[in-house]
Amino acid sequence: VQITWDTYNKRLNDLLGKLTNEQLMAETAPGRNSGIYLLGHLAAVSDDVFTFLDAGPRLFAELDYAFIDNPDKAVLKTHTIPELKAALVKINATLDAHIAGMLPEEWFTKHSAVSAEAFAKEPYRNKLNIMINRTNHLSYHLGQLAYLANPTL
Amino acid sequence: VQITWDTYNKRLNDLLGKLTNEQLMAETAPGRNSGIYLLGHLAAVSDDVFTFLDAGPRLFAELDYAFIDNPDKAVLKTHTIPELKAALVKINATLDAHIAGMLPEEWFTKHSAVSAEAFAKEPYRNKLNIMINRTNHLSYHLGQLAYLANPTL
Repeated sequence: VQITWDTYNKRLNDLLGKLTNEQLMAETAPGRNSGIYLLGHLAAVSDDVFTFLDAGPRLFAELDYAFIDNPDKAVLKTHTIPELKAALVKINATLDAHIAGMLPEEWFTKHSAVSAEAFAKEPYRNKLNIMINRTNHLSYHLGQLAYLANPTL
Repeated sequence: VQITWDTYNKRLNDLLGKLTNEQLMAETAPGRNSGIYLLGHLAAVSDDVFTFLDAGPRLFAELDYAFIDNPDKAVLKTHTIPELKAALVKINATLDAHIAGMLPEEWFTKHSAVSAEAFAKEPYRNKLNIMINRTNHLSYHLGQLAYLANPTL
């Protein structure tokens, strides 16, 4: 699972390295989310993983307002593309360090947003499941961000 | 992992239930893959999971020509939308039945496309890893197929 998480984050970073700021400001398809919105959205969702893994305080909780709580174009962007890219680098480095220090059995303990009662009934709601879901969420939006690149890439 | 696979397949089926054939014939974004291509592509990739899991012969290997081996618009489509939808239903039902009969430890055995030598060095190349990768592949294209739906959905 960590390997898949790293793989898709690497694909995201490779794509971000290819896109200009102008491309990232554009909509991924007519009337759809812009690149900057999806970039901030993915950074905020990755940052929120700290909460679910009981991995300490979030680094950039202030991202949520413009990139999770509100849809694209509803509120002014609170961060620029360089700020979002820097946040993503910091989030992923910190998360990687935390994950590297986790014991294998820790993955099968409950994540922070499920009660002990609910976890007893649904033991799959563990930390591993969070990473699997977050990786799929990343893949989902990566498929959309890919539309910002030139079709020949 | 099965839960995530089922979740994203359910999301795909829900989306397919909402889209008209006309919407599925359209491009997901200007100049990008059409809905019918991605539908056939996802069906073919899911069908190929049988190979990797040593789950018996594939059901629809003939999908590969138009939906994996060649890009969209390069060759004539060999299947209609109703045929692709029916194939997907059959593939998923057969795969679900196979997975339900697998023993937990079987997930950690090597998948069919890795040699015993390579697997000894890289033990994560197991059947579980195949399902994780295929689920992320599905999520990636589901994010693109979602662009065929009305923005208000």
